[in-house]
Amino acid sequence: MPGKIRDRGISIGTLPVGAKNCITDVADVCVGHMTIDEALTQDGAYACTGVTAILPHKGNLFQQKVTGASYVLNGFGKTTGLIQVNELGVIEAPIMLTNTFGVPAVTQGALQYMLDMNHDIGQTTGTINIIVGECNDSYLNSIRACSVTPEHAIEAIRIATNDVAQEGAIGAGKGMMCFGYKGGIGSSSRIVHYETITYTIGCMVLSNFGQSTEFLAQRYVGTSVSPQSTIPPTDGSIIIVLATDAPLSSRQLTRVIKRCGIGLGRTGSHFSHGSGDIVIGFTTAHYIPHISNQLVETRTQLREDHPIMNQLFTAAAEATEEAILNSLSQAITTVGRDGHKVEAYPFFEK
Amino acid sequence: MPGKIRDRGISIGTLPVGAKNCITDVADVCVGHMTIDEALTQDGAYACTGVTAILPHKGNLFQQKVTGASYVLNGFGKTTGLIQVNELGVIEAPIMLTNTFGVPAVTQGALQYMLDMNHDIGQTTGTINIIVGECNDSYLNSIRACSVTPEHAIEAIRIATNDVAQEGAIGAGKGMMCFGYKGGIGSSSRIVHYETITYTIGCMVLSNFGQSTEFLAQRYVGTSVSPQSTIPPTDGSIIIVLATDAPLSSRQLTRVIKRCGIGLGRTGSHFSHGSGDIVIGFTTAHYIPHISNQLVETRTQLREDHPIMNQLFTAAAEATEEAILNSLSQAITTVGRDGHKVEAYPFFEK
Amino acid sequence: MPGKIRDRGISIGTLPVGAKNCITDVADVCVGHMTIDEALTQDGAYACTGVTAILPHKGNLFQQKVTGASYVLNGFGKTTGLIQVNELGVIEAPIMLTNTFGVPAVTQGALQYMLDMNHDIGQTTGTINIIVGECNDSYLNSIRACSVTPEHAIEAIRIATNDVAQEGAIGAGKGMMCFGYKGGIGSSSRIVHYETITYTIGCMVLSNFGQSTEFLAQRYVGTSVSPQSTIPPTDGSIIIVLATDAPLSSRQLTRVIKRCGIGLGRTGSHFSHGSGDIVIGFTTAHYIPHISNQLVETRTQLREDHPIMNQLFTAAAEATEEAILNSLSQAITTVGRDGHKVEAYPFFEK
Amino acid sequence: MPGKIRDRGISIGTLPVGAKNCITDVADVCVGHMTIDEALTQDGAYACTGVTAILPHKGNLFQQKVTGASYVLNGFGKTTGLIQVNELGVIEAPIMLTNTFGVPAVTQGALQYMLDMNHDIGQTTGTINIIVGECNDSYLNSIRACSVTPEHAIEAIRIATNDVAQEGAIGAGKGMMCFGYKGGIGSSSRIVHYETITYTIGCMVLSNFGQSTEFLAQRYVGTSVSPQSTIPPTDGSIIIVLATDAPLSSRQLTRVIKRCGIGLGRTGSHFSHGSGDIVIGFTTAHYIPHISNQLVETRTQLREDHPIMNQLFTAAAEATEEAILNSLSQAITTVGRDGHKVEAYPFFEK
Repeated sequence: MPGKIRDRGISIGTLPVGAKNCITDVADVCVGHMTIDEALTQDGAYACTGVTAILPHKGNLFQQKVTGASYVLNGFGKTTGLIQVNELGVIEAPIMLTNTFGVPAVTQGALQYMLDMNHDIGQTTGTINIIVGECNDSYLNSIRACSVTPEHAIEAIRIATNDVAQEGAIGAGKGMMCFGYKGGIGSSSRIVHYETITYTIGCMVLSNFGQSTEFLAQRYVGTSVSPQSTIPPTDGSIIIVLATDAPLSSRQLTRVIKRCGIGLGRTGSHFSHGSGDIVIGFTTAHYIPHISNQLVETRTQLREDHPIMNQLFTAAAEATEEAILNSLSQAITTVGRDGHKVEAYPFFEK
Repeated sequence: MPGKIRDRGISIGTLPVGAKNCITDVADVCVGHMTIDEALTQDGAYACTGVTAILPHKGNLFQQKVTGASYVLNGFGKTTGLIQVNELGVIEAPIMLTNTFGVPAVTQGALQYMLDMNHDIGQTTGTINIIVGECNDSYLNSIRACSVTPEHAIEAIRIATNDVAQEGAIGAGKGMMCFGYKGGIGSSSRIVHYETITYTIGCMVLSNFGQSTEFLAQRYVGTSVSPQSTIPPTDGSIIIVLATDAPLSSRQLTRVIKRCGIGLGRTGSHFSHGSGDIVIGFTTAHYIPHISNQLVETRTQLREDHPIMNQLFTAAAEATEEAILNSLSQAITTVGRDGHKVEAYPFFEK
Repeated sequence: MPGKIRDRGISIGTLPVGAKNCITDVADVCVGHMTIDEALTQDGAYACTGVTAILPHKGNLFQQKVTGASYVLNGFGKTTGLIQVNELGVIEAPIMLTNTFGVPAVTQGALQYMLDMNHDIGQTTGTINIIVGECNDSYLNSIRACSVTPEHAIEAIRIATNDVAQEGAIGAGKGMMCFGYKGGIGSSSRIVHYETITYTIGCMVLSNFGQSTEFLAQRYVGTSVSPQSTIPPTDGSIIIVLATDAPLSSRQLTRVIKRCGIGLGRTGSHFSHGSGDIVIGFTTAHYIPHISNQLVETRTQLREDHPIMNQLFTAAAEATEEAILNSLSQAITTVGRDGHKVEAYPFFEK
Repeated sequence: MPGKIRDRGISIGTLPVGAKNCITDVADVCVGHMTIDEALTQDGAYACTGVTAILPHKGNLFQQKVTGASYVLNGFGKTTGLIQVNELGVIEAPIMLTNTFGVPAVTQGALQYMLDMNHDIGQTTGTINIIVGECNDSYLNSIRACSVTPEHAIEAIRIATNDVAQEGAIGAGKGMMCFGYKGGIGSSSRIVHYETITYTIGCMVLSNFGQSTEFLAQRYVGTSVSPQSTIPPTDGSIIIVLATDAPLSSRQLTRVIKRCGIGLGRTGSHFSHGSGDIVIGFTTAHYIPHISNQLVETRTQLREDHPIMNQLFTAAAEATEEAILNSLSQAITTVGRDGHKVEAYPFFEK
């Protein structure tokens, strides 16, 4: 059974990883997957897709919001919910991942989940902002069939836990491919230290980008000969979710998540034209109550020029790169619509 | 029956208006409304909402895209589809308007409509980007009931025509309110001339913003005494859609639609904290084919320093201001959930 | 002698003004002007220009920085220093205003002033970011002669005080014009209250925009007949500086200063193509030390949804509008290069 | 004498390089350097700095502008002139590079050069936008002495040619350092093909970033043991200038230059907090006349989804990475202020 790339003797960067080497190393962060894998018809239509939910914490996110930020590396994508994150710097609902045409159903499901939890929304208080990231899994998945339902999204949220998250061809990653091989969900984490202070950065990606000729495999296995996929090349996409517990303002968080693009670029990506390469970040350092009778809030944030800020930048790049490799490392060969087959990446076996 | 504000003797600005004083003065632009108006239960739950579709042209928008742009005046909103517009500068599907929690259903409906028209999407070509703007109509509408269905969206697209669009408490505007009175859909247009050349700018708004104390009524009726609403004040939102046939690049179009905020500000708005104030623009000057075997495209665009550019800026501000007033002028007193009643704006009767 | 527009019986908006109705109502803010007014040759070359310095406080700004933000309404301008403000959200030097070609000399002067005050800059610590805003005063000023020197900038900083700032054709405003009449420096302020809490917003503009046909004079004097200037129309520019003592993060401050464009638009501006319309803001609510041994800083910031935030938005719009009118109201008829004469605005005499 | 890294057997990426492997492979692009290298006092003050001018073409840039774009990777920098580039998408003056405190003098010099060439500027037409990028060379250069004069800038422009540009410790690169060793000016180019069409991308960097522990030397020499500098670590900066002859709109050009950050990240940079990492791009595909009696301009631009667009993205990343390495490869050991010495990078000798 495939493991993380560290199990294969490959490590990325110099910073220490967290106990789980997973986004769930950031305390309270929970992940849940719902995978859909079934023939739709006799003649090849196949649902090979799913939903992944990432919760900044398992409480009531609308009542206890977290500081958030987003950054668009390349905007050929249909992610929803970022306008409000950019304006207010907060996230107030689970971050959902799915296929491109699953966005409406997943938005509806996450909305329903939050409405059921908060009877005041749309009644005595305002509305709620749902964030859904997506990639196009149409090589393996009959995407036009819109197989994802609101119930899949609700269930992914309900089962989310702080355990080591499963990776590879699971949840929203079920039908994704990366560098011409099977991709999907991957995760990694980093720890930064300063004296007695420790902060954690965790990253989870939904990888669905790149052509096999682009992959800089030699960086990882010391050979310049990469396997070449026979899958028709497409541009794909990647959604990167970065979590941390470091006390950052949304402006500072934006600076940190911008560095995820460095990790993506190091794998070989050039943020292709047709790729929706989008980063969403949050910090659990403070919960921001929906209702407050305070005029003024007190927030802690890192000194911008403290060396630990540069460590966080490095951690964001390293964790993203390793999360992408983990998505490749853990994804198994998958067969989907019309008999399309995407192989697990072979080079790690060398 | 209420008419446009020009029927009431009020005119805005100095530029001439188009034949219909409507967004449909831009040739090919079509508008369709589906209004939902029904009791949901015996105890006050009421669906008072709808969908509006604005089509840059009535052909196959995915196959013949138009140049587009967006601009966020205040980002407390859940509009979807703008990331790709910003990256690529194109619009490839109808622009849909609805209530905040109707976004998923309307996205699904518009998607289904486009899938039915284009069998290659998600099969042999990429996916498609749907744009849905929204405001929160929860004072009149039982928004948690999610009464809008994909079929409403499909029907709004199907019935869209280039006729004079209906305004006021109709379509997505059914449950909206503006400056404490009944708002909703409003439209206006402007013509700019240079020698023998003529360009049209058309604007349609979904108005749902402002408190009665903010409205600068004296600008329009020469009195400093504005009627004061008894509706509990909320921040609301406004979606502004600007259409033109002037040859503009997406960068130039962004410059033009930025000026819609001037028109909004002149009515009295301060782009309130809780208001999602968002502008979406397009030009029908060139159709951009989805498939092309060309390496290089030839585009025409206005000389940036030509005086007509400033006229377009003025037109955007004037048409937005007048469209907002038209939404007030044409919206009739409406009763919705829990017996909530929002009056038609009274000052025009003076 | 002309006074502020309130002396002429015209007031803008509904919020109360500060004691001085000036940017210096924000405690600690200091303003200094250096005016240049001299014939350069016998045949018409004339220096009709100057420098204005706005200091967030009179201490060592590099050692005690303030939170800052900027917003570009229209970017046809040569303002310098905003990249770093946008990245870090801090201002660490006086904000300087001058003519377009005076920017290098004024940058050099402000730099020299700060270097003399801080012997560590560029020696044992990093460099410093200077902000200089500009407008083109070439109708009255022989701008190609580059008459502004670093010494003018240094002197403007040195003489800056917290007194009521002079307005009109003074300092950087000496050669500017607005709506076809004499413009330049103008200022206004607003007070917002909540229970026992009071915050001040102060605005100073360098006005140099607009054609006489655009000015919405009827908003102020109740007549639709505006005087029409015989000056050849140009697009001009405006620099708006907004100061406050409200505790705001740089993200929140950006939201507030965005609303200055509402005030600008209400006077009649359409943010013309050739106009560099730029807003720079700061809050004196916290000083941020250049050197600190802290890992984490504690900041206070307003609850985003507190009603006082909307009051600040309103205050920014009102103070900007009134500052522009004050620049018109206080500027006297001025003669500059080649005998060019720009009249004081006449309508107030009616 | 050190050469380019290709002379050392190291090559980057897969695309072919241009004839000169230099930004001047883009036809018409000219580069000129002025180097300052002199003791200022007996006690260690030393001018170790300079100016570099990059001209999109050798004609009158104000009269024949080029399409331009900028992108801020990390905004801790004092580059000037980008606001107008972002608004209008044009460049109308040489792109100048120098040290941080040389910006005012270099702006003044480039302005003077352009004024002398264009007697209408500031007289009968508008003003002109000068772009100056900068890095902080204060470890080697007595930066507070402000040794750069306007004449240095003028001379750098005057002597600019389309020859192979000199690299390393020259011009603005004289006092810069990179990864703890001597850096400065570096250049590289790439050719992209499609059938009979060929486009060139050229890159020039002013490298002054990174700590020796960050450099991913093993990517280039196959060893994990990098030499470690004894220079006190600083964050530094990098200015990246990208030239092409491909027909691109400014929006498309922005997309291309965004990928320069990929090349920067691959060398080991994490866009450090204190680093002003800024990209400026232009295409020479069309000249845009300052004066025109046309209402409408015709522009050619690449089909966005043509495979050559992805090749341009790849070329931008590869050329940037190789230009940085060339700056390291060609820079010689340099001694500056207070006896500070920065060594040439040693690893290439292995």
